[in-house]
Amino acid sequence: MPRTTTARAQLIASATRLIHSSSYLAVSVDELCADAGVRKGSFYYFFPSKRELALAAIDEQWTWTRANILEPAFAPDVKPLERFERFFGLVAQHQQADVVRGCPFGNLAAELGTQDVVIRDRIRQVFDGYSVYFERALRDASDAGLLSEDVVSRTADALVAYFQGALLLAKTRNDATLIEDLAVQALHLVTGDKP
Amino acid sequence: MPRTTTARAQLIASATRLIHSSSYLAVSVDELCADAGVRKGSFYYFFPSKRELALAAIDEQWTWTRANILEPAFAPDVKPLERFERFFGLVAQHQQADVVRGCPFGNLAAELGTQDVVIRDRIRQVFDGYSVYFERALRDASDAGLLSEDVVSRTADALVAYFQGALLLAKTRNDATLIEDLAVQALHLVTGDKP
Repeated sequence: MPRTTTARAQLIASATRLIHSSSYLAVSVDELCADAGVRKGSFYYFFPSKRELALAAIDEQWTWTRANILEPAFAPDVKPLERFERFFGLVAQHQQADVVRGCPFGNLAAELGTQDVVIRDRIRQVFDGYSVYFERALRDASDAGLLSEDVVSRTADALVAYFQGALLLAKTRNDATLIEDLAVQALHLVTGDKP
Repeated sequence: MPRTTTARAQLIASATRLIHSSSYLAVSVDELCADAGVRKGSFYYFFPSKRELALAAIDEQWTWTRANILEPAFAPDVKPLERFERFFGLVAQHQQADVVRGCPFGNLAAELGTQDVVIRDRIRQVFDGYSVYFERALRDASDAGLLSEDVVSRTADALVAYFQGALLLAKTRNDATLIEDLAVQALHLVTGDKP
């Protein structure tokens, strides 16, 4: 099999899907190669280790998440609070499945946070990336008089925690509709600090 | 080594500590036996599988959590909202360490939710157990006119999600003080639905 960029992309696609469906430690390099249809020698041509493949998969999923969830949810065509409702709605929609898999980023942080500082820090960066979108909407909400400007950063943290927890609870109950049910309260996190 | 109940308790203690410090799949039966000072034959005398030991460890941690966090936090000697502040304070205090390990229950739900329905359902029961404490305080808050009685159940779900997310974010940033910082917003989840 040629060492094409297609093989690299197939390995990333396999890692994305298999790790999200089970966990990082549950999937071996052999299984990743078999799923991607790539020889083990080729694997190490593209990636020095499983961790490096996981990091590439995280980057790929983050690009996907920005394009398919964050950009459409936080487009400024609707009022700030409606953007958060749209965000929870899109997250719920993408979690709909026979088996709710939860957040690919949150799952890795929970599984590997104490075991792999490099992966943990990459997930921290992803969470910071969510915060950028949240803070932009919160500043618009602040301009509209819905919260004080000085709590924007803390409120963004609270919303990252809340949506991660909502995804984890949905995974634990295997019920994605819970995410939309919990969207209403997300707005209280914003408006509880009315100036 | 005698097959004493001490050996069983040592296996549970090792599983509790090692799984919380790494993850379920990261710890083998051999490592659990070595850490507990128990022969492998004795392991299978007490537990048919690693899963059964993990379930016993979950039960043990839940007993500990009720006695050391939930009972003291939700004692009705202070007002309902102060109980939630006390809860977040105690959770933060027990997470203080060089490496923040996150919630032992949430970690397992994130790691194994799609892979082991038995463990997932046990964690769901634990989360329901937190809800029992939360709902009791929320009903007192409702009696005090702080929220409508008809949103007590939904608000309890929101608080379970929020504190789980706060623990996950604290683990991802390796910063337990974040949990106390996020306690303020937890109260907004309650009072956002003022009747």
